[in-house]
Formats: sequence, structure tokens, C-alpha cells
Amino acid sequence: MDQIIKGSQSLIFRNAPYIISAGSVVGSKEAEGPLGKLFDMTNEDDLFGADTWEEAESVMQKEACILAIGKAHVDVKSIRYLFGGDLLRQGIATSMGVEGLQIPMFGLYGACSTSGEALALASMSAAAGYGGYMLAVTSSHFGSAEKEFRFPLGYASQRPLSAHWTVTGSGAFLVGAQDNESQGGTKKSHARITGVTVGKIVDYGLKDSQNMGACMAPAATDTIVQNFTDMERTEADYDRIITGDLGYVGQSILFDLVRGRGYDIREKHMDCGMTIYDQETQDTHAGGSGCGCAAVTLASYVLPKIEKGEWKRVLFVPTGALMSTVSFNEGASVPGIAHGIVIEHC
Amino acid sequence: MDQIIKGSQSLIFRNAPYIISAGSVVGSKEAEGPLGKLFDMTNEDDLFGADTWEEAESVMQKEACILAIGKAHVDVKSIRYLFGGDLLRQGIATSMGVEGLQIPMFGLYGACSTSGEALALASMSAAAGYGGYMLAVTSSHFGSAEKEFRFPLGYASQRPLSAHWTVTGSGAFLVGAQDNESQGGTKKSHARITGVTVGKIVDYGLKDSQNMGACMAPAATDTIVQNFTDMERTEADYDRIITGDLGYVGQSILFDLVRGRGYDIREKHMDCGMTIYDQETQDTHAGGSGCGCAAVTLASYVLPKIEKGEWKRVLFVPTGALMSTVSFNEGASVPGIAHGIVIEHC
Repeated sequence: MDQIIKGSQSLIFRNAPYIISAGSVVGSKEAEGPLGKLFDMTNEDDLFGADTWEEAESVMQKEACILAIGKAHVDVKSIRYLFGGDLLRQGIATSMGVEGLQIPMFGLYGACSTSGEALALASMSAAAGYGGYMLAVTSSHFGSAEKEFRFPLGYASQRPLSAHWTVTGSGAFLVGAQDNESQGGTKKSHARITGVTVGKIVDYGLKDSQNMGACMAPAATDTIVQNFTDMERTEADYDRIITGDLGYVGQSILFDLVRGRGYDIREKHMDCGMTIYDQETQDTHAGGSGCGCAAVTLASYVLPKIEKGEWKRVLFVPTGALMSTVSFNEGASVPGIAHGIVIEHC
Repeated sequence: MDQIIKGSQSLIFRNAPYIISAGSVVGSKEAEGPLGKLFDMTNEDDLFGADTWEEAESVMQKEACILAIGKAHVDVKSIRYLFGGDLLRQGIATSMGVEGLQIPMFGLYGACSTSGEALALASMSAAAGYGGYMLAVTSSHFGSAEKEFRFPLGYASQRPLSAHWTVTGSGAFLVGAQDNESQGGTKKSHARITGVTVGKIVDYGLKDSQNMGACMAPAATDTIVQNFTDMERTEADYDRIITGDLGYVGQSILFDLVRGRGYDIREKHMDCGMTIYDQETQDTHAGGSGCGCAAVTLASYVLPKIEKGEWKRVLFVPTGALMSTVSFNEGASVPGIAHGIVIEHC
């Protein structure tokens, strides 16, 4: 069961864990977007029956978890550990959201890269034999994120064109040490996490929190190139290289930076933040963002393509901008972090 | 290298990782307390050369990491992954603190239980063979925590007797898959993490964020009793059962709740929050708290006793209260979480 340590930041799993099932829950704007019909659950008023945006986000997390668990017909008690996070201060959406599931849990914070962090730790724990099932869940909510990082929605603040639109959504993934069928389940999985590249914090000194694509592009570059180096691969070895939420501004910077490192990923690149909304009609400026953006796009759009074998091997790279309102007000820069998850058809 | 899954929440490591070294950095009040002479580094004005409390906390984290790494004479590049967290929104003290070390990192949030969470994940990763060295670091700062959760210090707010005093401090732990000497290092370690009990969120519906001992005691009870059950042990199997920061109020509730579950830990219990300050002379009310409290007490006071063999086996249980100012203002309860780390002399 020994794993292979590759290069300075990566692991390749000899017994690659399966992504057995996924659940996706989104708000109204996401439901109206290009991927609208692919999500498991949507809601008209973005409150999901709750009284506040924060509670609504917790409801989404819980529902996403229940969907992922339910699709695999797995008893919640058989899930060993949960890895979860969100964008809110003290990760409160996760604490309140997953509390009812009563799964032993690890709270995470990696800004919008958290879905990668959660999948990395869930697959590392499953591959190590720490339990049959792990659950990885992340969320974001436009209303709670605007309140947390910018202004309450009622202020009707204007946003620069480089700003992102935080995705209202939560994605959950049931990761299994073995295929679900061999654990007594019913869901035949065709996607495995074969390796991870854990990201470092990369800081180019940018301070504009309304241009997070630019802040995160250096970290995405670092993780993608490190993945190529560690695993002795190039862009040719992947059907898609999928960043979380660089958006239109971040993508062009990513292409330039990656080219400077000797690779050209333009033909292979996809960004979840550019995929989830229609920029022309939905007024989402640089694109979608948030912990939920990469998670629900993976759950609803990317994973089915891997399951079907349309894509054989994908490098999934959620990207995060590490900042808070306090660090911003104190004049600190906005460094980025990105984690790479290699998902393969099987 | 297969690990043993015990009961519903615990792991026992067949190849138990070593705590090779630890670094502790604290502020002035902690330096004046009963453990004052045991810390590696202290600072008179609690700013550590920085301009803000948040930056000061980041400096502490960095220094604690460098101390732990330096004591073992280990090249920072040989540290595979870092697991770190703090109490501030979006874990900014950690992001800014460890950025300069350039170690691939996982950001965590588990309130004051985060030192347990970090040690759990670091030891799980080391035991799984994911790298020779892992680093676990957490911090808290009285000034930044008061600003984050209550009022800026300049307001001179009064505090109820059930309130805790957030510890200004950071503790870092170098966790090794093998003994340091066999990896070419110089530090002979006599402490191993032999198992973990990952905690669930426990919510008794308490809403008083100024009485966190009461909010966290049920979670501490749950994790301690689960550890006994999973590992088929009782309080007799431990030299000390050490909670993070229940304080005087939380301790009495813990004793009652644990007794209700059929165990009596009064003779074996120690609380870091009750150990780090002198309640009589330091006006710290219920005791110390914060991510740094359990971490620096472990690093400076507990670990040396285990190293010397004075204590053969200890259950270290950092406790966290899961809340934010937003959840508090919205009327949510304050659930708790606690992670159990079994540390043994070797």
C-alpha cells in the first residue's frame, strides 16, 4: 500500500481512491447559466429555506453531502472522516452545515482552493487505509461572500470588470478506498484520484482584491508546472487542465506565465469560473469564483465526462486568494495557493 | 505500513511518527506566567517587531516554525507538507506567517482545537509514508483575537468571569516518519504519536460565547470517551489527559459529563488554559484559550515530560468552540469540537 512520493510536492497513489459519487447544489443564477441543467439541486431565492445567507450556505453543504451519500447508497455512519471548508470567517458555513451528519471532521481553509485541499486530504486518507469512505465538501454563497469580503448586497455597490461573481453552490464528493461495489455499495465508479500536487503559497505582491484572477494566476502556474515536473509529464499527458476560478483576466496571465516556464496549455485549459456563467448575458464580469465554483463544476460537468471516458486524465487545480478584510485594510498583499488533483477514467 | 482502524473515530499507527522537535513563542503575559521560563522565545510588547497584532501573530508562527526546524537541524526543503491554522478570519495569520517558508501547505480551521487537528493530519501523513517530515503549527494572539471576536483593546471592555484570556503564542511541531537520526538529523526523539481520535461536532445548544469552557466541555467529553471506547482503554491507561482550554468553568462540567459516561478522570486531568496563567495574580478569569494555548503548553511543558519518561502516555485533547461574530449575531449556538492525540514516551 506504500505510495509513491514524486518530486518535491506530489504523490502518486498506488491504490488510487475512487470518486464514488458527487452532489451539487446551486443558486438561481447558476441554474440559469450554461451548466444549469446539470446540477442536482437548485433554489429560486438562494435562501434554501433559511433566514440568512450564512444559514443558506450551511443548508447547501448539508444537502450536497446527503446527495453524494445517497447516490452511493452508503450509510452515513460508514463515512470515516469529513474534510470541509468555505470562505466565511471561522469556516462557519461548514461547521453549521455538516454538524448534523455527525461525521468526525477536519475543518479546512484554503480560500477558493479548498475543494482541491479537501479532495487531496480525502484521497490521501483513503489511500493510506484510514477508512473505506471519506467525504470532501466545500461551498460559497454570493450573499454571504459579498457581506464577508465587500459590502452587504443592499448597498448595491458597483464592481470593477476584473471582479468575480461568487458562485452560490456547494459540491460534495464521496471518496472511496475501494470501488463502491466491493464495499457493498451499488455505485460503479469510473473516476479515480491517481495523484496530488500540494501547493505552496505564491505571492507576486499584488494587492487588488477586486482582481483575484491576477492574484491567483502565479499560484496556478506554480502548481501546474510543479505537477509536470514532479510527475514527469507535460500538457500532452492531460485531456484537460482545469483551474478553479481564474476567470478571463487570470487565464491570460496564466497562459503567459506558463509559457514563460516552457509549456503551452492553451489548447488544454478550462476554467470553472469561465464555464459556469455566460459572460455575455449574465453580467458576471471576470467569471465565477468561490469554494463552490470549482466544486460544483467538477461534480456536474467534469466528473461525468471522466466517468464516460470522454476525458481520460484531467488535472483539476482549484485556486485560492489568501486574504481577509483585515489583511486588505492593513495593506497586505494577496498571495495565492492552488492544489492539483489528478483524476483519471478507469 | 498498514494502520489499524480502531472503533468509529480512531487510528492507531503501526509505525508511529515521532515528534522530533517543537518551538514555542509567546507574549509578555505568558512569559510572566508559571511556564514563563520554559518557552523558547518571548517578546515584551507583543508586537514582535510588527506594526499590527495580525502581523505579530504571523511573525510568531514563522519563528515557532524556524525554532522547531532549527532544533532538529533539518533543511526546510526536506519538510514535505505543513499543516497550520489560527483563529483569525480566513486564517490570515497562518497564510502570512508560513508564506516565507515555501513549504507545500494545508490551511486548517478548528478553532482552538486546531493544534490537535494539525498534529492529527501531520502524523497521519507521516505514518502513511507521504514524506519524511511534516510540520504542524498554530497560533493565537490576545490583541488580534479580541479585535476579531470581541472589541478592539482600546475600548477597554469588561469581561465576565467565565471569559477566557486568549494566549499570545505559537507552537510548531516537526513530525517525522522515522526518528530524526535515521533521517540524517541530530535530534534523538523520545516522543511518538501512536494514535489519534478525530472529533465530531458536539452541540448542546449553548449560545454564550463568553463561556466557551461550557461550550467546549461536551466535545471534550465525547472525544475522550470515544478514545477510551475505540482503543479499549480507560483513564488508568494514561498518565495525563490534557485538554486545550476548557478553563475552570469547563473543567468542572467535563468532570461531571465524563462521570455520567462511567469514567472518572479527575486524578489524571490537566488543562493547558489552567496551567499557562496564574489565575490568582494574572486576572485571566476562566483561564487561557486560543490555538496557541494548547500548542505552546505542549511544546514547552508537556513534551519535555514525555521526552524524559516522566509521563509514559498522554492523551492530548485540544478543544475548539465553533463560532464567528456573524453566527453569534445571528443567534446561532456555539458547538464544540475536540481532537485526541495519543503521545507516548519511547
